[in-house]
Amino acid sequence: MEEDYFHSYNNLEVHQLMLEDSARNQAYRKAILDNKNDIKGKVVLDVGCGTGILSVYFAQAGASKVYAVEASEIYKVAKDIIKENNFEDIIEVIHSKVEDLNLHNKVDIIVSEWMGFYLLHEGMLNSVLIARDKFLKPGGLIFPENATLYSAPCRVPSYFESWNNVDGISMNSFCEKLKTEVSKKPLTSKVNEDYILTEPEIVLWFDMREVTIEELQSITVDHLAIANKEGKYQGICLWFSCTFPSYSTEPVTLSTGPGDADTHWKQTTIVLPMEIDVEVGTPIAYQLHLNATEANCRRYSLQVTMKDPNEVEHPEYCSCYLTKCILVRALLEKYENESLAS
Amino acid sequence: MEEDYFHSYNNLEVHQLMLEDSARNQAYRKAILDNKNDIKGKVVLDVGCGTGILSVYFAQAGASKVYAVEASEIYKVAKDIIKENNFEDIIEVIHSKVEDLNLHNKVDIIVSEWMGFYLLHEGMLNSVLIARDKFLKPGGLIFPENATLYSAPCRVPSYFESWNNVDGISMNSFCEKLKTEVSKKPLTSKVNEDYILTEPEIVLWFDMREVTIEELQSITVDHLAIANKEGKYQGICLWFSCTFPSYSTEPVTLSTGPGDADTHWKQTTIVLPMEIDVEVGTPIAYQLHLNATEANCRRYSLQVTMKDPNEVEHPEYCSCYLTKCILVRALLEKYENESLAS
Repeated sequence: MEEDYFHSYNNLEVHQLMLEDSARNQAYRKAILDNKNDIKGKVVLDVGCGTGILSVYFAQAGASKVYAVEASEIYKVAKDIIKENNFEDIIEVIHSKVEDLNLHNKVDIIVSEWMGFYLLHEGMLNSVLIARDKFLKPGGLIFPENATLYSAPCRVPSYFESWNNVDGISMNSFCEKLKTEVSKKPLTSKVNEDYILTEPEIVLWFDMREVTIEELQSITVDHLAIANKEGKYQGICLWFSCTFPSYSTEPVTLSTGPGDADTHWKQTTIVLPMEIDVEVGTPIAYQLHLNATEANCRRYSLQVTMKDPNEVEHPEYCSCYLTKCILVRALLEKYENESLAS
Repeated sequence: MEEDYFHSYNNLEVHQLMLEDSARNQAYRKAILDNKNDIKGKVVLDVGCGTGILSVYFAQAGASKVYAVEASEIYKVAKDIIKENNFEDIIEVIHSKVEDLNLHNKVDIIVSEWMGFYLLHEGMLNSVLIARDKFLKPGGLIFPENATLYSAPCRVPSYFESWNNVDGISMNSFCEKLKTEVSKKPLTSKVNEDYILTEPEIVLWFDMREVTIEELQSITVDHLAIANKEGKYQGICLWFSCTFPSYSTEPVTLSTGPGDADTHWKQTTIVLPMEIDVEVGTPIAYQLHLNATEANCRRYSLQVTMKDPNEVEHPEYCSCYLTKCILVRALLEKYENESLAS
């Protein structure tokens, strides 16, 4: 499986896709070049450098040394690109897994573009954390510094709507079978911002300087979202953002949500087996479970459990339309008014 | 290989892609429903019916009987869809390869959506021709009735341009390796109409009533195209069109060129190892070779040979900018004027 994983990065078209993702490149570029003062003269480790683009940004920002570590055959291209950009004296390409790497000294900064679909898919994060524990000086910087995974109930019209008239033919039975098939696995596709039915909830947030591999093995989160528009609840949409360290300027955030600039990550959708009508105020309860599968440590299984919103705990001040929450709201407002009046 | 081929059509997402191709569906639909007079009471054979959409169109047009033959497991979905559209009495779904099919009587009409990328990829055409020879009455109709494969030199900027500055980094060495990789196989992607540098040339035209499997085994065509705009010649673009039979109305054509409505076939591009500057009048000579590979009878190999336009024969009246053609043109015009004057 490991061999398959690194082999997939021998394919140049995978790298083409990433290099053509300008939102990705520009976020790293800005985060690095905006912080020249903190980077000048520093030693950097680029974990899984790919074509070497991030190493070159650090060299451009004045790093004194960059170790660009890459396990796949693309390391040869990284060498060419570093030469083409005249940074052979600064950047040293090392063909190795970072787990097998030996460095004589610790580094000031670690950079990596380890994020997969719905953040954790691909599981390259583990390699970055191993590198951190082994090679980063105390107080060193990590680019990016923290990551957030979001989720929100959404419409997925392509799997539910218009199938009763496909160019003049009723195809509902096809749609039913298709839904059964697609609900078995997460979809990677661009989600229209208007299809998101609630405010996003945070599934997971972690600081790259502190998070451990163990903390990310199995994550279970219960959500209670309140619809802020009328629509059909047909799936759960997931996306992530990452924020880069900055001490002198506004920190840069790379955000891959439905309302953000397109990236090669798009968004991830879990399609529900059936749809539910919601209106403004409808509470939507669901549980997300992410689990690092044993068979392939680079993949996560992703599971949604729909819950009955009547049977989960609502926050004290809940804006949903359930009678108990409306009553509590009215009561709390009454107390507030009375305490203001007294 | 045959097993792999039919297995790929068990995947519902492949059918989703086709069903969402409205240009495809609507061309068949119009060709069928516009010709109700010729279809009413007729017996139809649908070769590789998939989800059964074309069979339903024929039932809607008044066919007395439709044999919907499908070798993959999708035949079960076809059965459901035919039931959902209330045509169980007209359409009979048969789970079989058409090569193994037995029918007691011959049919009036054969329909099939056999076209692959650059028309011949996938090679399902052979099955249609076998069905034609075995089951079609003399003078019977075939939907579609004829097919044309086109080619034209084109720009492919994503493999040649902007790589000298990828978000601030020079990546020409990556681009060179990428080109070497992609020039080994045809690309399926949408080509901008403005990137086509010449009038299209016809690689191949055939009439479905007459063409033989042998005629399509190996095709070699020499082209001499004349650039009608300035640009960089970086690849050869291929696409196809199909025309449907019609005796009462204007025949319907399904056309998949760069200027046509989007289809799931997109266009096919062969990327050249290097680029050539052209201006209006530049002759571009190339040879296309399509060959049914033996290892897998459902695939064609596709080969382009660039030729020296000085060393190929030009037509008598050639609009290119080579001196000999300019001279011949001037001479022919002079004769024409003299003969008009006399």
